[in-house]
Amino acid sequence: MKILVTGFEPFGESRINPSQMLVKTLSETHDPQVTLVTAVLPVDQAAAPDMMQALIGRHQPEAILAFGLAMGRSKISLERVALNLKDFRIPDNQGVTITDQPIHPQGPPAYYSTLPLQPMLSALVAVGIPAELSLSAGAYLCNLVFYTMMHTLALSSPGTASGFIHLPALPEQAAQADKPLPSMDFSLMQKAAHILLNELAVSLK
Amino acid sequence: MKILVTGFEPFGESRINPSQMLVKTLSETHDPQVTLVTAVLPVDQAAAPDMMQALIGRHQPEAILAFGLAMGRSKISLERVALNLKDFRIPDNQGVTITDQPIHPQGPPAYYSTLPLQPMLSALVAVGIPAELSLSAGAYLCNLVFYTMMHTLALSSPGTASGFIHLPALPEQAAQADKPLPSMDFSLMQKAAHILLNELAVSLK
Amino acid sequence: MKILVTGFEPFGESRINPSQMLVKTLSETHDPQVTLVTAVLPVDQAAAPDMMQALIGRHQPEAILAFGLAMGRSKISLERVALNLKDFRIPDNQGVTITDQPIHPQGPPAYYSTLPLQPMLSALVAVGIPAELSLSAGAYLCNLVFYTMMHTLALSSPGTASGFIHLPALPEQAAQADKPLPSMDFSLMQKAAHILLNELAVSLK
Amino acid sequence: MKILVTGFEPFGESRINPSQMLVKTLSETHDPQVTLVTAVLPVDQAAAPDMMQALIGRHQPEAILAFGLAMGRSKISLERVALNLKDFRIPDNQGVTITDQPIHPQGPPAYYSTLPLQPMLSALVAVGIPAELSLSAGAYLCNLVFYTMMHTLALSSPGTASGFIHLPALPEQAAQADKPLPSMDFSLMQKAAHILLNELAVSLK
Repeated sequence: MKILVTGFEPFGESRINPSQMLVKTLSETHDPQVTLVTAVLPVDQAAAPDMMQALIGRHQPEAILAFGLAMGRSKISLERVALNLKDFRIPDNQGVTITDQPIHPQGPPAYYSTLPLQPMLSALVAVGIPAELSLSAGAYLCNLVFYTMMHTLALSSPGTASGFIHLPALPEQAAQADKPLPSMDFSLMQKAAHILLNELAVSLK
Repeated sequence: MKILVTGFEPFGESRINPSQMLVKTLSETHDPQVTLVTAVLPVDQAAAPDMMQALIGRHQPEAILAFGLAMGRSKISLERVALNLKDFRIPDNQGVTITDQPIHPQGPPAYYSTLPLQPMLSALVAVGIPAELSLSAGAYLCNLVFYTMMHTLALSSPGTASGFIHLPALPEQAAQADKPLPSMDFSLMQKAAHILLNELAVSLK
Repeated sequence: MKILVTGFEPFGESRINPSQMLVKTLSETHDPQVTLVTAVLPVDQAAAPDMMQALIGRHQPEAILAFGLAMGRSKISLERVALNLKDFRIPDNQGVTITDQPIHPQGPPAYYSTLPLQPMLSALVAVGIPAELSLSAGAYLCNLVFYTMMHTLALSSPGTASGFIHLPALPEQAAQADKPLPSMDFSLMQKAAHILLNELAVSLK
Repeated sequence: MKILVTGFEPFGESRINPSQMLVKTLSETHDPQVTLVTAVLPVDQAAAPDMMQALIGRHQPEAILAFGLAMGRSKISLERVALNLKDFRIPDNQGVTITDQPIHPQGPPAYYSTLPLQPMLSALVAVGIPAELSLSAGAYLCNLVFYTMMHTLALSSPGTASGFIHLPALPEQAAQADKPLPSMDFSLMQKAAHILLNELAVSLK
């Protein structure tokens, strides 16, 4: 069973991104039947969706778990919906800002996550990891990659389990902030990732 | 060098209190010259200040580090000031609610922490632990114990370094909350406590 | 030109709802060419969408402006998207709670507001009224009515300008809250409604 | 009966300050027995306390009501305590930043408001105005003026009712903010000021 796991490089004022760190450490799972393919996406409105499409084409994964950073969230956010919308508050890492544009003019207005969100939420909370369902993945790069992967899969291999997970800031990012900012320990994110992968693998069997 | 470290038992709707857990695990420091005396205070408006006074009388500590829980804070809060005020939002664990009363009718209006707060803050932030100075320790049990210990020391051994530190909620507490709630990993709190104790020991030499 | 304007009755712990009050006072506009049809919808997951459908059928409005209350918001929220999702945190006024269900199993995943949101936002901010675009109208009654009206119009009269606006709490609601809660004066909401109606009328001409 | 009412000029990134506007419109009260003396203080760490002292010396008021702006607060904050502390996050309007200094090295650690805070709070909430007691007036100009006036009165006319009230941002300030920001209508602030003055006058009789 092949699962694609992606993260993002740092963006905005941050020099680190927990989703990048997470993906780099996720070289294996406890389940010998699961093969992980990992990739770190650029925060580039053109290259990021291209890379996601290429990864899907090359690896034909049975499932995708895409991670990103959402500064200000206090819990791991299991995103429910990807919008067909690009509306950036800050430029991407190439300096490009896109305002109020669809991702695919002919695509559907939204895609819902096909991950087993309720079992994932229950499994995280059961071991004391702050987690929540979220109704908005924003309209920046995370949503762009989320929509792109759902759209690509809908056309090529409908039914593939895939979705997006937003991580809180890391403690070292909160330490640098001059205002209150929630954070989560990296070891807890790693524990969460293993639980999410396990729930995903269980749901695929 | 003898340092008194205190925490609190759980209160309100929580069954756990990170300050209690922290104190129970703080049996030693890296510094062989430091002896820790630890105690968990009851959330009881009568017994808690009595116990603090008794601890000071019995152990005559060179310094005091008192910890408590502040649900909703995202960073370790180095409290700057203890107010001569009791004004509870929720009852203590004996069911007692006190509204708008001084702690000591003849005592000074406030005491400032005599801990080395700026070096402590810098040392925490330097290793990536979210921390902040705080202007309010509230008007509940934490402030009551904070004021009581400062007042007791002012009368018996002025100049003793002492102060109060508020901890965020634990991840397992945030996991149970049905709303966003910032939290901090217990291992990070432990690391913070060792750094605080170290800065305190350095300042006393 | 006929514009349908709707609000909601109170729900949850509130005895008042600014959207109800707003609709009741909106008997006229400055524009003699505009006829307003107003209605207050019940917070009833079955009756509210039925009533919206009936209102559209009976009045055949050229545009719809639906208002609701979003406690906790500090600005007037111009909602961008209605999700095909019912997931209530609290029961409706009939005691019904629906979890994780589509509104229309065969309907599209989402509808985007067809109101002139950017001109509306600019017009509100230009006169000093706090306003924002919002990516989530939740998954409760407001979103249910929003989705239902978009879906009904898509089938019967596509292209009709329509959308949903969330209002902050009223000051009297914030006054009763035992925690910090943003609010907005009712007179400012009324001013905002006239501006929104004016921008809508301009866009229809 | 003479009551001194003060506000502040704008500071930081704001071009307006509701406390300045409030003071300028408060030329009269409903009570013929009350004479108001109003003044707008500069956001200048040297000139503001000097001006407050001069106003007290010149007018010998029976009571003082000092207003200031606290961006981010959602309710009118009746401040309970002034700290003997200057610790600015942003420079004053002269570009001066003071860090971790006492206001009066020989002064008491804090002063408590001598306004009738509980009746004031009840009176505001009774008419639906969001209000709260606050344990921290910060450590910037507002607290500096608050402490200075309490200290000056303690030395010259102890027992004079006086205190500090923080106002939320105005709607036009929130409209300009690119993030959620609570606000309060100016007319509600004016209504609040009359209620506060009335409660104050009643308490003095």
